Amino acid sequence: MAKLTRQIDDAVLVAPGAKSQLRKRATVADDIFPDREAAEDATKENARAIDALQDALWAERRHSVLVILQGIDTSGKDGTVRGVFNRCGPLGVAVTAFGRPSDEELAHDFLWRVHMAAPKRGMIGVFNRSQYEDVLVVKVRGLAPPEVVEQRYDEINAFEKHLTDNGVCVLKFMLNISKDEQRERLQARLDDPKKNWKFNASDLEDRKLWDDYQRAYEIALDRCSTEHAPWRVVPADRKWQRNAIIAAVVRKELEDMAPVYPKPDWKPSDFQIT
Amino acid sequence: MAKLTRQIDDAVLVAPGAKSQLRKRATVADDIFPDREAAEDATKENARAIDALQDALWAERRHSVLVILQGIDTSGKDGTVRGVFNRCGPLGVAVTAFGRPSDEELAHDFLWRVHMAAPKRGMIGVFNRSQYEDVLVVKVRGLAPPEVVEQRYDEINAFEKHLTDNGVCVLKFMLNISKDEQRERLQARLDDPKKNWKFNASDLEDRKLWDDYQRAYEIALDRCSTEHAPWRVVPADRKWQRNAIIAAVVRKELEDMAPVYPKPDWKPSDFQIT
Repeated sequence: MAKLTRQIDDAVLVAPGAKSQLRKRATVADDIFPDREAAEDATKENARAIDALQDALWAERRHSVLVILQGIDTSGKDGTVRGVFNRCGPLGVAVTAFGRPSDEELAHDFLWRVHMAAPKRGMIGVFNRSQYEDVLVVKVRGLAPPEVVEQRYDEINAFEKHLTDNGVCVLKFMLNISKDEQRERLQARLDDPKKNWKFNASDLEDRKLWDDYQRAYEIALDRCSTEHAPWRVVPADRKWQRNAIIAAVVRKELEDMAPVYPKPDWKPSDFQIT
Repeated sequence: MAKLTRQIDDAVLVAPGAKSQLRKRATVADDIFPDREAAEDATKENARAIDALQDALWAERRHSVLVILQGIDTSGKDGTVRGVFNRCGPLGVAVTAFGRPSDEELAHDFLWRVHMAAPKRGMIGVFNRSQYEDVLVVKVRGLAPPEVVEQRYDEINAFEKHLTDNGVCVLKFMLNISKDEQRERLQARLDDPKKNWKFNASDLEDRKLWDDYQRAYEIALDRCSTEHAPWRVVPADRKWQRNAIIAAVVRKELEDMAPVYPKPDWKPSDFQIT
């Protein structure tokens, strides 16, 4: 387990201060998880462990975990929630999806809506997209002036430092799929009637901007992989490898947090239930 | 299936306009689910079906489901979430627990915080406690004048009518346990170190008011079991019977809603993914 998580982090962690070199990073992880069945078994076991650890996290009520999932369309953000966090269920995990901001949200600074959704002590919060959209789509589409985008990297780092200083363990995963894999997944949304509703013609517009998005991701990874909240780039062409990697990392981080059930300040014999 | 859900509703539904006769209602359901293994299998199958139906509910984005769980301490509200809704996972189910109101919440009318937590279209919302606390603990403990509590029944009915008129299917379950069963569950919280953190001395104060709470529940059931949002009193001494009953009802109600995947207004051949 310790060896495996070290192997995973060697492969996926973006070392703080180093260049992320996104374009050189793998979208498959055959060296870490060569066997599908074994990977799926590991994911199940780790998901069960995450569930048990979250129970103690909740009982202790001192810390929380924030899992940030970023990735281009079809990269598997929802699938990761299902694959890794379904076992914890809705009592322990709160998912927030950040879409196009509402008028109310735009009337505040870009971190306002994100802060409001921060997980309470004891919970695992999962963000499907996040504050990083404000340096990704906003940058690529020119939705804010360059100098505004420029200052956001530092603002995000300061915000995440604040969260970690206050007991939130921030885990950031970029789901890295290849352009070919995205084509297949978009095509499946066209072809499979049950997936039709997920298809959005604007996804094709974004696909045309593939290189711009990759560049924007690379800058975000370079500037915002910090000691307190490092980025991990997860090979995500194979869903079962993606889930296995993320489940292993989340479990390891929770084990390091080592939540404990609080000791009562009473003895059972203090009470007589009539 | 249809026969079973009819049998369940015969046993658990509080007919609108009729007296709920809470004290005569069963806390076990051996006639409906005599066999534990079969009940657990049924729950699993129904939970899977609920998951699939919620996927269509989300795709359709027209309706939502609000499951209200009420019951005295230890009656199994959290356990129901785990037992019935864990399979849907945090993407499809949003749980809101209503505790002692905050200053901010008390500065508004009692339905304000409840309305804010209403499930969006496509979601299943689960309330652990609800607006009914304002006619239960508030009544028993005298936290509001009697005439204020008195008008709340009609206000709750109007509010729930508003929700159902706007596409929310409101399902209300009172988890009915016996006083003996509560003693055992409280004792387990004293005896089991992993459950110690759940024990709260104030639960014993509420237990002393058992009859007052039963009376307050009875009035709420009598006054607020409506055609648009009927109450169901679920025998809850046996957790596996409780889960089996609720899973069957929720599945049936979702099937009646019959969510469908929206038909696209395009043909796959309209798009060429390059």
